[in-house]
Amino acid sequence: MFYHKKELQYTAKPDKPDPVYAKKLQEVLGGQFGEITVAMQYLFQGWNCRGNEKYRDMLLDIGTEEIAHVEMLTTMIAQLLDSAPVEAQENAAQDPLLGAVMGGMNPQHVIVSGLGAQPTDSAGYPWNSRYTIASGNLLADFRANLNAESQGRLQVVRLYESTTDHGVRDMLSFLIARDTMHQNQWMAAIEELEQQQSVVVPSTFPKEKEKQEVAYSFMNCSEGTQSQSGRWASGKSMDNQSTFEYDESPEPMGQAPSLNPAPHYIHDTPLFSSNNPNEKK
Amino acid sequence: MFYHKKELQYTAKPDKPDPVYAKKLQEVLGGQFGEITVAMQYLFQGWNCRGNEKYRDMLLDIGTEEIAHVEMLTTMIAQLLDSAPVEAQENAAQDPLLGAVMGGMNPQHVIVSGLGAQPTDSAGYPWNSRYTIASGNLLADFRANLNAESQGRLQVVRLYESTTDHGVRDMLSFLIARDTMHQNQWMAAIEELEQQQSVVVPSTFPKEKEKQEVAYSFMNCSEGTQSQSGRWASGKSMDNQSTFEYDESPEPMGQAPSLNPAPHYIHDTPLFSSNNPNEKK
Amino acid sequence: MFYHKKELQYTAKPDKPDPVYAKKLQEVLGGQFGEITVAMQYLFQGWNCRGNEKYRDMLLDIGTEEIAHVEMLTTMIAQLLDSAPVEAQENAAQDPLLGAVMGGMNPQHVIVSGLGAQPTDSAGYPWNSRYTIASGNLLADFRANLNAESQGRLQVVRLYESTTDHGVRDMLSFLIARDTMHQNQWMAAIEELEQQQSVVVPSTFPKEKEKQEVAYSFMNCSEGTQSQSGRWASGKSMDNQSTFEYDESPEPMGQAPSLNPAPHYIHDTPLFSSNNPNEKK
Amino acid sequence: MFYHKKELQYTAKPDKPDPVYAKKLQEVLGGQFGEITVAMQYLFQGWNCRGNEKYRDMLLDIGTEEIAHVEMLTTMIAQLLDSAPVEAQENAAQDPLLGAVMGGMNPQHVIVSGLGAQPTDSAGYPWNSRYTIASGNLLADFRANLNAESQGRLQVVRLYESTTDHGVRDMLSFLIARDTMHQNQWMAAIEELEQQQSVVVPSTFPKEKEKQEVAYSFMNCSEGTQSQSGRWASGKSMDNQSTFEYDESPEPMGQAPSLNPAPHYIHDTPLFSSNNPNEKK
Amino acid sequence: MFYHKKELQYTAKPDKPDPVYAKKLQEVLGGQFGEITVAMQYLFQGWNCRGNEKYRDMLLDIGTEEIAHVEMLTTMIAQLLDSAPVEAQENAAQDPLLGAVMGGMNPQHVIVSGLGAQPTDSAGYPWNSRYTIASGNLLADFRANLNAESQGRLQVVRLYESTTDHGVRDMLSFLIARDTMHQNQWMAAIEELEQQQSVVVPSTFPKEKEKQEVAYSFMNCSEGTQSQSGRWASGKSMDNQSTFEYDESPEPMGQAPSLNPAPHYIHDTPLFSSNNPNEKK
Amino acid sequence: MFYHKKELQYTAKPDKPDPVYAKKLQEVLGGQFGEITVAMQYLFQGWNCRGNEKYRDMLLDIGTEEIAHVEMLTTMIAQLLDSAPVEAQENAAQDPLLGAVMGGMNPQHVIVSGLGAQPTDSAGYPWNSRYTIASGNLLADFRANLNAESQGRLQVVRLYESTTDHGVRDMLSFLIARDTMHQNQWMAAIEELEQQQSVVVPSTFPKEKEKQEVAYSFMNCSEGTQSQSGRWASGKSMDNQSTFEYDESPEPMGQAPSLNPAPHYIHDTPLFSSNNPNEKK
Repeated sequence: MFYHKKELQYTAKPDKPDPVYAKKLQEVLGGQFGEITVAMQYLFQGWNCRGNEKYRDMLLDIGTEEIAHVEMLTTMIAQLLDSAPVEAQENAAQDPLLGAVMGGMNPQHVIVSGLGAQPTDSAGYPWNSRYTIASGNLLADFRANLNAESQGRLQVVRLYESTTDHGVRDMLSFLIARDTMHQNQWMAAIEELEQQQSVVVPSTFPKEKEKQEVAYSFMNCSEGTQSQSGRWASGKSMDNQSTFEYDESPEPMGQAPSLNPAPHYIHDTPLFSSNNPNEKK
Repeated sequence: MFYHKKELQYTAKPDKPDPVYAKKLQEVLGGQFGEITVAMQYLFQGWNCRGNEKYRDMLLDIGTEEIAHVEMLTTMIAQLLDSAPVEAQENAAQDPLLGAVMGGMNPQHVIVSGLGAQPTDSAGYPWNSRYTIASGNLLADFRANLNAESQGRLQVVRLYESTTDHGVRDMLSFLIARDTMHQNQWMAAIEELEQQQSVVVPSTFPKEKEKQEVAYSFMNCSEGTQSQSGRWASGKSMDNQSTFEYDESPEPMGQAPSLNPAPHYIHDTPLFSSNNPNEKK
Repeated sequence: MFYHKKELQYTAKPDKPDPVYAKKLQEVLGGQFGEITVAMQYLFQGWNCRGNEKYRDMLLDIGTEEIAHVEMLTTMIAQLLDSAPVEAQENAAQDPLLGAVMGGMNPQHVIVSGLGAQPTDSAGYPWNSRYTIASGNLLADFRANLNAESQGRLQVVRLYESTTDHGVRDMLSFLIARDTMHQNQWMAAIEELEQQQSVVVPSTFPKEKEKQEVAYSFMNCSEGTQSQSGRWASGKSMDNQSTFEYDESPEPMGQAPSLNPAPHYIHDTPLFSSNNPNEKK
Repeated sequence: MFYHKKELQYTAKPDKPDPVYAKKLQEVLGGQFGEITVAMQYLFQGWNCRGNEKYRDMLLDIGTEEIAHVEMLTTMIAQLLDSAPVEAQENAAQDPLLGAVMGGMNPQHVIVSGLGAQPTDSAGYPWNSRYTIASGNLLADFRANLNAESQGRLQVVRLYESTTDHGVRDMLSFLIARDTMHQNQWMAAIEELEQQQSVVVPSTFPKEKEKQEVAYSFMNCSEGTQSQSGRWASGKSMDNQSTFEYDESPEPMGQAPSLNPAPHYIHDTPLFSSNNPNEKK
Repeated sequence: MFYHKKELQYTAKPDKPDPVYAKKLQEVLGGQFGEITVAMQYLFQGWNCRGNEKYRDMLLDIGTEEIAHVEMLTTMIAQLLDSAPVEAQENAAQDPLLGAVMGGMNPQHVIVSGLGAQPTDSAGYPWNSRYTIASGNLLADFRANLNAESQGRLQVVRLYESTTDHGVRDMLSFLIARDTMHQNQWMAAIEELEQQQSVVVPSTFPKEKEKQEVAYSFMNCSEGTQSQSGRWASGKSMDNQSTFEYDESPEPMGQAPSLNPAPHYIHDTPLFSSNNPNEKK
Repeated sequence: MFYHKKELQYTAKPDKPDPVYAKKLQEVLGGQFGEITVAMQYLFQGWNCRGNEKYRDMLLDIGTEEIAHVEMLTTMIAQLLDSAPVEAQENAAQDPLLGAVMGGMNPQHVIVSGLGAQPTDSAGYPWNSRYTIASGNLLADFRANLNAESQGRLQVVRLYESTTDHGVRDMLSFLIARDTMHQNQWMAAIEELEQQQSVVVPSTFPKEKEKQEVAYSFMNCSEGTQSQSGRWASGKSMDNQSTFEYDESPEPMGQAPSLNPAPHYIHDTPLFSSNNPNEKK
């Protein structure tokens, strides 16, 4: 069960309104790697956790914190939209800058949400739950989480660089720091799990059931071999089970497919002797 | 530029048709972590790569290989759909098993694709490009890739467990092995990048600009402290820059938000003295 | 800011697993009118609330409660999925009932979420934020909320009728009761607002600016006049501003549109004398 | 069956083209609460209506009218796009205003639709049918309709405020008036239904089957009790069946969930003694 | 403006309910090439038509007819859902056939739409407007229409083959006949337009501005030359402007791309000498 | 299986960066009729092809070529985004043109993809696979392909007109020429198939099973008969099987629908005598 305190986790007060920036900031609220994504992802991972109670607790702790980040961002965006120039159309004809601002806003911030934040990204695309994953396998999911925090911190940093508003930058410096912690956290949790099982997910599938001859070979599917100079092309494999190989000219190992004709009730194109179109079936 | 050979990368021949399994197998073709996702993700990362040519080459190699995996899966699914029992409706009344099979098929495999594979997942939901990321930051993106291969191998293993068809299992054992390689590959590439920069993405944002006092502290947003027993709650941080702290009772650091009223042209609810609804505005 | 307690708001324990029912129950978790919808809708309405602090507080109270409902449903669904028959394929050939069950499951409950709940609906379609609205106008939004609780309670009741599991029914009886409260709550809040402003949203748009001659007339756009017998076709209008009229044969009041040809850089179809196709341009 | 007359329901002629406004006006054509939504929603409610013929007739009347509104808006948008400055790129370098205008257009209005309207919203997001509901329960659905007309009229009013074009405003004044009627209409229909059944949807579920002790209590899930001053916190409930209560400190009534481990074929994370990571399984 | 008559364009009465078939039939109502698609596509093409009044009229005629097809299908689906076995869960344990039926239904037909049709396809995916196109170029769009009627008739025929219900087949035989007409109609309209302009869309782009040396050559991007035996590989081109050529081994004509490094504010991966990871930048 | 060469199929080098144009160019990369669509559509049609090997080969040839077009466009877009003015916000206040440029960019080109191309359209909407069709019936699908190439070439031409950059125009002139070829190609393939079967898809459904009396008649569902002057309203039908007729006043041929009441477990609105709302049920 959940409870709310009225104060924000950290201060969210812009120096002044900036409706174009409000549109951009939506990305880390309702985008692919925004705060709604991590909140939902961590909560579902926690709720679906079977055993391993310390991970369940940890996931729900951080998922609950992320809702507070959603709250900070919505509050910031609403303030950035204060008094957006809805009525200024006529003046805009005389004032190109104003026109530019209006052109750059998300019109839904006026028409739909009435100067409020929306659960969408910076292109106005709505958040959807296919952004999240809770697979039941914690190592797989913690890698998803490390990725989400890496993409998320990168995006917040880019947004930090895109404004000079001190209030906005102050709040973003808090989010950037929390993402530093959260990247560290998932790396720590991943290390813990990797020490107890293999680094390859899932660790419980019997090795002999996979086609072992291609399990450690890099396939060079292009002309040129620049890809040979990477760590992945030679040396011990990362799971310590084998040695990387570099296959410079991988060839097909399978059949040239030829499918059966469809049964009549499918009403496909009738078959005919393909080299002579004049010869009707 | 791209070229095609008619043979598959590996054999894709089921022992016998199984239209219900065909529906399930769609997940790793057109699902969130299916082969279309990794093909598109690696190709876009490669095409957008700015400098670092060996990574560009490597990304395009593996992206090109993944198109071959898409090809194997579509071929397999088409064969699993051979002669699906479209017309059997009447007999189904006498044959519960047939009815069950029909109930479990994706009807679009008959009506829309005429016994062909579709670029959708096992729930019939179409593939969309928000499943992919190419951020320009290679460390961030390689973490996305490691996650995709971890989720992908997990799903293929679950599908392997869900069938006893030897032909299907043979092809899946190939895909599982390739995912073993690809997890190893991304771990190797990640290690290489982490050795040259900090483990925190992005590594180029100045430390002093983030709110350092919360950059290494775990916030326990729930009753109970089971989350304290994890590696993330004490000891050196993973980036070797600080020490993990455990904040048992995190408190708000920000304001209780109070937004300005909207301007009149927004036509929000008029303000009124909220405690006395009889006092009209 | 938000906090979590480990216990659920109400007991969520099924008598026994039922993976087909788990799929159905997803509707009220991640569907159009499921608990994720109302949680997100109420929270965003609260966070975007400008003034009117008692409404902000109330919205955040109920939004916070709805996250607890999401938690109960995910927990229930995970238990309904306990030991779903993944490996049973071969036996299914001998056991039609088992086959039927498998046909009715959402395959992603095995392949993707590993027997966990998903933020999707009963058709496997992901939740998206266009299900929600936070317009800034509280009367409009409370009507959205009343609708959401009406559709939601209706769906939960239909799900109650679709199972005989006592544990599931017990939890649903709690949700049904909360929806009773929440319908009552929104009706109360609506009444309060309607007493302070007009019942028509928005109440602040000047009457003389709307085309008043069509503001109270029902237009019968079909043959037959059964629609005339409703309350909307005669008598005082609900806003007490006028009288309902019934327009039995509404006629067009506007022009027959004729658009300008597109400029050449659009490369539309060239114009030609349309009545004589033999006369080439 | 349906028939068409060439004239519009009301005049749709702008004073002059305005491609940026054309983008905004798309919201009430193809947005969440645009005219396509209400047309489809009312028609499906009418077609699915079981008995209650006067409601079926009324729903099809208004659904048919809404198609005429779609027609008016597409016609208006096409005219607002007349001669949009596609080729002006070069001049834009010298003319910031022109550049601003072009930046604010939806590029698809040129590239995709060739200066025609699109069935999308003002962010360019396509209309989809999850915006609509036809549940079979008329009281629930009429509440959906009242909400749609409230949100719709609010959006049209905001659009009215965003332009000074007399032709556009004239057409919008017609749509605003029709939305006044339609809000009145749904309120009238709701009153009629509420008089014949309970105000709580559905009215046919036995009271004793719901958890009555929580059916009329407001739960204060936050610090502070501002939410206590509302009509929903005390006094007779709106359905006249009970009295509102205010639960100042609601506590969990359910279990702390603990899920069973997943069966082996799910390949989740293996369980291990979580407090001692050095103790391998 | 539009008007409605209560009678259907053609009889829609199934012999008996069949909820599994109802799910399938949704494909041609709300699927990619269902009746909603063609209704919306033809209406938008008509409304956006600039000049060429006979085409506008024709488009609105057929668009209006397609709404009547939507009406017939919703009516049919609602009847196929009559008395679907919602409550039968317990009995299903004893009756495998019933279980099979339930497994094959779309659960939303009970929970969401209460035995009514939905604007979705047979996989439960909602209709969206990106299924449609109205480009302003009539020849392009009539080709879209011919495709839609071809796919649509194919799907209806497959659905005809999937049932033995005489009432359903009778209605489908009507839709199949109308699709015969509509394919003929678009072929006629296409022929008319092609006689007045070139067959290549758009016909108004100057030939000298395109790279003419590759405008008539087939590029064999695979091993093997089976594709050489087609009409497209030799002989006069279809636009009578040139001769088809077959390029057996097409080679790249462009550069090997090398992108500039990103500016610092993008925070990409830092560049480093890629072959020696120990040599830090 | 697939292979890659590092060089592009054709040169992709803009004269100079233009981030607003980069956004527009996304349409033909990741839009409804962009290069991803045709690549995926042709590949799936080829992979699902049952028999007719020359068509399979041809489809895979052109599908493989289209991946090279995707590659050219991503490379071009990345270069158009070189050094986009992220940090310029402050200066923008002094420089309206810069502001205009920034207003017109897709913000995700900075925040999400770090100056790289995205698999989305010009409105920022992600590509999804419902844009494609592979029905198994080649004549139907080749019509889809002809449409895609017609819409695609039209869009590229409009984009050509929207820029004066010589490098961009050079690349577009190549794509326009390839689309000329591909339109010719599909017309050639269509002619070949039409000569071997009827022009109506599918050609294998028995004529006597369709409602022949409406299979060649145009229905004038509107006032006025401008649609009578088209080729589709008189003369021999295009399939040479009959003669077009013009039905000036089509009348309903079906029933006025009346549905059964829903069973009690659906909890619809109770039925009541609809003309007397005071008479409770």
